[in-house]
Amino acid sequence: MNIYDISKQAGVSIATVSRVLNGSPNVKPSTRRKVMEVIDRYGYTPNAFARGLGLDTMNSIGIICADSSDLYLAKAVYYIEGSLRKNGYNCILTCSGYDHGDKEAALALMLNQRVDAVILVGSNYIEADREGNGYIMNAAGRIPLFLLNADMDCPNVFCAMCDDFKAMQEASLALIDSGVTDILYLYNSHSYSGLRKLDGYRSACRMREIPVADDLMQFYDGSREDIDGVCRFLCGLRKQGLVFHAVLASEDMLAAGAVKYAKLNGIAIPEELSVIGYNNSLLTTCSNPEITSIDNQLETLCYQLTKTCIGVLSGEKMPPKIIYSGELVEKETTRLSPGPLDAADGR
Amino acid sequence: MNIYDISKQAGVSIATVSRVLNGSPNVKPSTRRKVMEVIDRYGYTPNAFARGLGLDTMNSIGIICADSSDLYLAKAVYYIEGSLRKNGYNCILTCSGYDHGDKEAALALMLNQRVDAVILVGSNYIEADREGNGYIMNAAGRIPLFLLNADMDCPNVFCAMCDDFKAMQEASLALIDSGVTDILYLYNSHSYSGLRKLDGYRSACRMREIPVADDLMQFYDGSREDIDGVCRFLCGLRKQGLVFHAVLASEDMLAAGAVKYAKLNGIAIPEELSVIGYNNSLLTTCSNPEITSIDNQLETLCYQLTKTCIGVLSGEKMPPKIIYSGELVEKETTRLSPGPLDAADGR
Repeated sequence: MNIYDISKQAGVSIATVSRVLNGSPNVKPSTRRKVMEVIDRYGYTPNAFARGLGLDTMNSIGIICADSSDLYLAKAVYYIEGSLRKNGYNCILTCSGYDHGDKEAALALMLNQRVDAVILVGSNYIEADREGNGYIMNAAGRIPLFLLNADMDCPNVFCAMCDDFKAMQEASLALIDSGVTDILYLYNSHSYSGLRKLDGYRSACRMREIPVADDLMQFYDGSREDIDGVCRFLCGLRKQGLVFHAVLASEDMLAAGAVKYAKLNGIAIPEELSVIGYNNSLLTTCSNPEITSIDNQLETLCYQLTKTCIGVLSGEKMPPKIIYSGELVEKETTRLSPGPLDAADGR
Repeated sequence: MNIYDISKQAGVSIATVSRVLNGSPNVKPSTRRKVMEVIDRYGYTPNAFARGLGLDTMNSIGIICADSSDLYLAKAVYYIEGSLRKNGYNCILTCSGYDHGDKEAALALMLNQRVDAVILVGSNYIEADREGNGYIMNAAGRIPLFLLNADMDCPNVFCAMCDDFKAMQEASLALIDSGVTDILYLYNSHSYSGLRKLDGYRSACRMREIPVADDLMQFYDGSREDIDGVCRFLCGLRKQGLVFHAVLASEDMLAAGAVKYAKLNGIAIPEELSVIGYNNSLLTTCSNPEITSIDNQLETLCYQLTKTCIGVLSGEKMPPKIIYSGELVEKETTRLSPGPLDAADGR
């Protein structure tokens, strides 16, 4: 039952119902009573009432991300907020951090805010084990959920993602096929998307029959803003005798650290070390040389996810999954496909 | 009149009033009538009613910024959201863009959202001419407003800011006193804060009796993410014959462009060109060499502003202005204060 039904049953206009629900004083007591009687008769739950009440003032959608100051997540929040606002929705923003318990609490709190839907921004809301995702499934029993860069099969959950596996597989193959050996895979997240990227690298190695060495898959667990920390981490690996001629990174920040590492140690890029990042962010052009990176079509993904969200809330049947392909954008830290000129003059 | 008054007048508990206001079915019709009669008698305005209604569910504060994907603004939104959330407030986020009309519309829309207060993030909400700020003064007549990095004298408006004038003045003096000549001041915003910074540079020149040349104050009006665009802009100035031995930039992004410009033209940093940025962001450590920059204490400012906001909403008397000093963080793009060693060996 919604505000239209109340209006019909009480025999008053929708505007009048809205005024009653909003507590406006410009309603005759007899009219107010009539409306409240209908509400009493049909046994409103507070929540449904609140939604009806909000007809002209709520229309809120919750956005939860781990850290809205992260370069990539900030962009996503910006695109999503803009797209929802253009369609008349307010955005309630919550930053949950990366801890599982905090993420669960953030979603629970958001459900209490009378939002019409929640958008979870970033792949880190999905755990590798199915049980870790119970909190999402429960929430989806109450309102539709929309996941950016995550994949989940559950009624009332809708996903828009980049095929990170394929994107990283293609980047790995491009590196291998350009003649680069000893590729170090550097990552900093065990999120769903993080593991898919790692699998993409592994799969490429298998396709080219290259052994996947454990010490060529390194996890960096320092701060997400500590580029110098990444540089020190790589210096440490080098000191331990690890040989690598490429750094394939799951994030641009890590790739920026690799560029600094090369500079510090007098290693020529890309001649002695190739570097590839992920997200194609501002860091890739700030770095010198500019970093080859994978563009995972963030703006398109955000646009499609909000389109799905608005469709679902309007009662349309929308696809539960939308998958895009990433695109490798070559800049100065790699030489992946030597052009005819390079080949001719033997460079 | 608030929910406590209604409870007293109607002779029922606050919980019961809350249930009535929320439309809960678990209220006897006679009790509901009693509560509604009190409400009728005292002539509630919809807004006050809504606030009362929201006692346990609203507590919303609006955050408006030009672009939440901007590195600096994203950090500010992150700090503010986190601090407010810890204090039990929800944040409704709106990105307004940089256009004056759009900013005005964003604030007007936010006022319709029943928020308890609005925080305007970034100095660009204040116009140099007083009339351009009428929309803020009007809004302050309805709810308290909180300005980050802007200065405004108006009842119900509270500001937390860094003294950009002083910070830029000190950076300019440090450059001049280190012996650098022909300092190019590069900026990309005519916002209040942008003009204060420019004034700081001018004032330093006057203090050291250096003529302030018009062509050494250059405005870059390209995209805020186009580092290569800044590089091209500087190459253009050089081609026109402009001589400069330092770039003092109003934003790190511009400074990153200056570093690229130097690399491209074989200009040694800091020997032939000193570079100073503003905000001390991730870009300063991503760049190679790392960029000397002004830290304007963003986290502290955000913390103080939300503290003021929470105080005001609790009915406490809070200071209308809080001003912090910026701090020059020297990295690799300058040599401002030669240590005794440098002086001794003549470097």
